[in-house]
Amino acid sequence: MSSQFNRRDFLKQTGAIGAGVTLAELGHSAAALAQESEATTSEPDRKPLKIGFVGVGARGSCLLKILMELPGVEVRALCDIREDRVERAHRWVVEKSRPEPAGYSRGDTDFQRMCQTEDLDLVLTATPWRWHVPVCVAAMKAGKHAATEVPAALTLDQCWQLVETSEKQQRHCTILENYCYFRKAMTVLNMVRQGVFGELLHCEGRTQENWVAENWHFFDSDGTIGWVAEHLAQYNGNPYPTHGFGPMAIWANINRGDRLQTLVSMSSKSRSLANFARESFGAEHPLAQRGYAQGDANVSLIRSASGVTFTLYFGGQSPQPWSPEHKVQGTLGTCIGEMFDYRAGDDGWLQAKVFNQKEFGRWRNYWDYLEQYDHPLWKALGQTANRYRAWDWSGAYDYLMLGQLVRALQDGRKPPLDVYDAATWSAISELAERSVAGGTSAVDFPDFTNGKWKDNAPTDLSDV
Amino acid sequence: MSSQFNRRDFLKQTGAIGAGVTLAELGHSAAALAQESEATTSEPDRKPLKIGFVGVGARGSCLLKILMELPGVEVRALCDIREDRVERAHRWVVEKSRPEPAGYSRGDTDFQRMCQTEDLDLVLTATPWRWHVPVCVAAMKAGKHAATEVPAALTLDQCWQLVETSEKQQRHCTILENYCYFRKAMTVLNMVRQGVFGELLHCEGRTQENWVAENWHFFDSDGTIGWVAEHLAQYNGNPYPTHGFGPMAIWANINRGDRLQTLVSMSSKSRSLANFARESFGAEHPLAQRGYAQGDANVSLIRSASGVTFTLYFGGQSPQPWSPEHKVQGTLGTCIGEMFDYRAGDDGWLQAKVFNQKEFGRWRNYWDYLEQYDHPLWKALGQTANRYRAWDWSGAYDYLMLGQLVRALQDGRKPPLDVYDAATWSAISELAERSVAGGTSAVDFPDFTNGKWKDNAPTDLSDV
Repeated sequence: MSSQFNRRDFLKQTGAIGAGVTLAELGHSAAALAQESEATTSEPDRKPLKIGFVGVGARGSCLLKILMELPGVEVRALCDIREDRVERAHRWVVEKSRPEPAGYSRGDTDFQRMCQTEDLDLVLTATPWRWHVPVCVAAMKAGKHAATEVPAALTLDQCWQLVETSEKQQRHCTILENYCYFRKAMTVLNMVRQGVFGELLHCEGRTQENWVAENWHFFDSDGTIGWVAEHLAQYNGNPYPTHGFGPMAIWANINRGDRLQTLVSMSSKSRSLANFARESFGAEHPLAQRGYAQGDANVSLIRSASGVTFTLYFGGQSPQPWSPEHKVQGTLGTCIGEMFDYRAGDDGWLQAKVFNQKEFGRWRNYWDYLEQYDHPLWKALGQTANRYRAWDWSGAYDYLMLGQLVRALQDGRKPPLDVYDAATWSAISELAERSVAGGTSAVDFPDFTNGKWKDNAPTDLSDV
Repeated sequence: MSSQFNRRDFLKQTGAIGAGVTLAELGHSAAALAQESEATTSEPDRKPLKIGFVGVGARGSCLLKILMELPGVEVRALCDIREDRVERAHRWVVEKSRPEPAGYSRGDTDFQRMCQTEDLDLVLTATPWRWHVPVCVAAMKAGKHAATEVPAALTLDQCWQLVETSEKQQRHCTILENYCYFRKAMTVLNMVRQGVFGELLHCEGRTQENWVAENWHFFDSDGTIGWVAEHLAQYNGNPYPTHGFGPMAIWANINRGDRLQTLVSMSSKSRSLANFARESFGAEHPLAQRGYAQGDANVSLIRSASGVTFTLYFGGQSPQPWSPEHKVQGTLGTCIGEMFDYRAGDDGWLQAKVFNQKEFGRWRNYWDYLEQYDHPLWKALGQTANRYRAWDWSGAYDYLMLGQLVRALQDGRKPPLDVYDAATWSAISELAERSVAGGTSAVDFPDFTNGKWKDNAPTDLSDV
């Protein structure tokens, strides 16, 4: 994908969004991506991208392995507080016949030495949440682009740190929000762009996970508390907003023609962490006796400058299977259901359904719309991406997300998700905490773009 | 059903709720109701209940016809501003070989003359919203019980009028919220009572309707505005909260052990009514030029004294098919999906699915739970109720709802839904308007029960 093509396509898209992008134009883009798809698999000499990777635990390992599948990627440095993890990741890299990466595991902040020492284009972090901003800031200050797992930041101050450092250092900082790359979420994005729903009015997103069942950094068997549970013990808001919010933000052109203005947030009582501690260690154990701040359900309402509203649910502690439900409502129609690919015959999924004014009278299943509205990126690379479902449930989305990031940087383009996305989506955490602490008071969103949201062009995530 | 039996059952239930009602106890209740079911169909001389009916338009006609199916019901008076409707309803009553009802159609307030003149036990109103409270108050002041279509009231002052009049006159005032009688909603209620979900944490409810498509009292073909559109032009909040909220309120024992405390509400921009007027009458028509206050989506967050949270969605104007989705989340499990009876093979419905901690690992379809948790009322009367689906989509629920009301009054018992339910659920309208007007500020719920919520016993809607 030449930058000549991209610029032309970008300009066309920018001009077309106002009047609604036509099918033909997206078809053009799809054809170009399809060509790229073939090129990708037969392009061993794509421009190298030198990457430093911080945090190669469970999630980091998955991302690292998929990164290694992308042409031109050279993982030159690995960093983790556990040396055995660095060694394990080192083996994976060498096994793929890539240059040997340097290893960093001298404590919590050894990523700083890595950023200062190594010649890297991009630093990726898949560390515990509180290290995302320190790693990204260190990377950008050392002249590297940065990419962070979600949430990008935990506080408003951290959000501003990302934005200010990115602007000052003129380095990109992207958020690795793979939910934006779900096939359904991207089909819906395409439908939004084609005007199926008319003018957008309201969206809903849900981050519903079963962290207790997975004991997701909650309690160790020796009775000590993990970093996620410690966070939930201290804060009451929405600790994990971006899975639910990211896809909606893209649909609604947040920071690209519209911006978030007001948020209120409400939390239910907190029961599940204390229950889990009691069941695990007995009622007398300190972990069963201490308080846990985070309510078992949290819902935030957000309103944009143009009057689009968003409902964002978080529930990670009580026993609920993963359920990434979304809704989009416009003046011509609506779509509601889970954004993860429905598996036919499995009662466990709420099928997504679509209603359009022109077909008045009944819902139609999402699948009836897929052929017409499948996203160009999925048309072009979906088959390749789906191979990685075997590696991890999110492999296909990680492949598309990382591919878009890597190709953008290789071509000298801005990644599809930028530092303003990272800051705005992650800001929901502290804003929700403030609102909950204030008795569900209304709080204002900072404008991290400093007015640039008015002129920024929308993205369709395929080509920025 | 003798009041001797009812009192015994009521006391048992009251005592049992705290410790969780057992299956055996509900089975007992179901058996009793099954006996009653047989008795109902072979009981021509059930105690008469004399009813005056106000508002026999589309909705009122449906309720009236189902009322006439209930043993002992005598509709003695009919009131409507349109004489032809009174005459039509008069024919229906006489055709069922019942005593001839008196007719009242001397203008908007002729219901007052009806209440003062007629010897009635109960006055039912299915008028436009703004007449619900005047009719109920006139009925109770004249010594009659009252029953109102939804919403019971439009303002806090009207809510208080209902409560104060009911208390002063010692007359019942019930809300005809048939969503509480949906089979799924009642199965979920039974599951809540049996502890399937553990301690309740969070509920969600949705009133999503397609009023524009139905032109539901919006615009007449001559270019005049209907009463629903006029209301939506003036107010911005949640004009129709009870369908979404009623079932949740019963699940969560609102006013029966818990009470609503705080509400915030947010509305999207308003587009659909103006669009509809423009499409109907042209861009220059006054109905296309005037403003419409009500946002096309409205979401309220509500928190109870015990820390249960509720998300309540309203959307009636933009093109969206009816979709009564609910969620209930507890410390042991969750249920999410549409509360209307799923029709197998119809993609148009999001199946309800249930997850329980004990069956860790996957969702199960609602239908897998139905046999075990079907509600006693549905077990006893469901077969009869289902006959009335042929009359109207809501016929089955109307039959159960009206049956419970009529039998309670015939037996001298309190109807399952009381004046505090009517006032509390309907109060959401003005509270939402206040919150929206205040920039999504937090507003407090009045305690219409004056502290009685602490001691009131929960209801399972089968026997109060």
